Amino acid sequence: MKTSLECFPCFIHQTLNALDMLNAEPQVREKVVREVLRYASQIDLLLPPPATGRVIHTLIQRECQTTDPYREAKERFNRLALSLYPDLVRKVKNSPYPLETAVRLAIAGNIIDFGIHTRLTMSQVHQSIQDALESPLDPAGFRLLDQAAQEADQILYLGDNAGEIVFDRLLIETLPREKITFVVKGSPIINDALREDAEFIGLTDRVPVIDNGANAPGTILELCSEEFVRRFQQADLIIAKGQGNFETLSDVPKRIFFLLKAKCPVVAKHIGCKINSMLLLDSSFLKGEKNCL
Amino acid sequence: MKTSLECFPCFIHQTLNALDMLNAEPQVREKVVREVLRYASQIDLLLPPPATGRVIHTLIQRECQTTDPYREAKERFNRLALSLYPDLVRKVKNSPYPLETAVRLAIAGNIIDFGIHTRLTMSQVHQSIQDALESPLDPAGFRLLDQAAQEADQILYLGDNAGEIVFDRLLIETLPREKITFVVKGSPIINDALREDAEFIGLTDRVPVIDNGANAPGTILELCSEEFVRRFQQADLIIAKGQGNFETLSDVPKRIFFLLKAKCPVVAKHIGCKINSMLLLDSSFLKGEKNCL
Repeated sequence: MKTSLECFPCFIHQTLNALDMLNAEPQVREKVVREVLRYASQIDLLLPPPATGRVIHTLIQRECQTTDPYREAKERFNRLALSLYPDLVRKVKNSPYPLETAVRLAIAGNIIDFGIHTRLTMSQVHQSIQDALESPLDPAGFRLLDQAAQEADQILYLGDNAGEIVFDRLLIETLPREKITFVVKGSPIINDALREDAEFIGLTDRVPVIDNGANAPGTILELCSEEFVRRFQQADLIIAKGQGNFETLSDVPKRIFFLLKAKCPVVAKHIGCKINSMLLLDSSFLKGEKNCL
Repeated sequence: MKTSLECFPCFIHQTLNALDMLNAEPQVREKVVREVLRYASQIDLLLPPPATGRVIHTLIQRECQTTDPYREAKERFNRLALSLYPDLVRKVKNSPYPLETAVRLAIAGNIIDFGIHTRLTMSQVHQSIQDALESPLDPAGFRLLDQAAQEADQILYLGDNAGEIVFDRLLIETLPREKITFVVKGSPIINDALREDAEFIGLTDRVPVIDNGANAPGTILELCSEEFVRRFQQADLIIAKGQGNFETLSDVPKRIFFLLKAKCPVVAKHIGCKINSMLLLDSSFLKGEKNCL
């Protein structure tokens, strides 16, 4: 997905939000905003928006002299999501079609995105869960994912954010998990999950966890490690969580199931759905029909 | 009032809105947005936000090869406001304190601001009128303005937008109008009123109308004509309409009554009121107490 001119106000908003969260000094705020504006004036619109997000957040990390500004927030949401876990497991187990419920909950977890919601509350997380369980649904998407997972030999599950990965663990435990490798980011970017998050929430005990060697809030193959790209090409099914993975992989010729909330108007417009829609998109149908929850 | 870093996303939004309204070609849109980003990266934050608004809209006019992109919109709102005029006159005449009602209506008219509302509807204008008439009020402000107007020898009334000036005419007819000179902008900027608008709505028949020689969406004295600056300095009372005039004149040591709606979060935060508040601010009290409707 290309960058839209409508992304630019949001790049600046994201910059200001991150600087607020870090309580950056006024002169640092001004320096960063000016650099972001200058950088944004020159970007290649053919690149996906997370390519710019990566540069912006790397710049903020450098100027605020911090390597992982969202570490504390990530830990908080890992703990909060873990506290919900037993109840979520029950919901899945008691469901007539556990995979469907687990997919819905995995999408619900995608609300924990500090690129969009810097002041997310637990009540918003609960609301997202409720919405995901109650949304009208097209059952075809779940059956297609189910079938693809049964037929696949190697499944690569591209994670998104800390906290959210607890919801991913739930889905992984519902899928044939012996085929699954979970992927985290190579180094800190916003609140995207890292290996330590996967370890903390017990995901490393369930499936192999690798990192993609990059620090983009999405999966930009050109920036990923050779090892990751090899695994990506070998896998016969990719499950990709979140808006960033959709923005960076929607044009890649590969069978990918995207699970996300369309949290920004540009992505929603690109997909052709309402903002905040919960989506299960099969890349086989992306140029034609869409399978939206 | 200085430029805040929070103004930057809005500068880009305003640019995109203006380009949308002009149905600009994609390559023109991209060129303008890139130029605005580059320009914004270098601006002096000590300047008021309308200084940047002026540059942005001048750039858009140049790149879209149009000198007055809002001409049609201005004429439409002049006509619409004129159609309301007889009813507004009745409201003022039937009021126990006509000046108060006329001030409230003049503030209501400030909603016709295409820098903020590019898709304004008549129902929003009606709602603004209703809100202005019903807002709880501090009567002190009206009495202070009334007294200042009685005592003044020369009153300069700085207009804001086309359409809105019909509401200004109403207030002018309630004040000692023989003392008043009305001021329009020197050349087109957004939907700010020009001499032709003042003529069209019959204001030139009521009071002398001069222009300020500039094309900023506010009053930046350094950019105005010598003649206007002389008149500004001579006047013993200034009535300044709208956010742009507040942003550009709030630090000028002069008795000014600002009548505006605080339509953006940065201005509202600066003043210390809720967004969309209707305000009558006496500059004498600006550093201390505020007189908000």
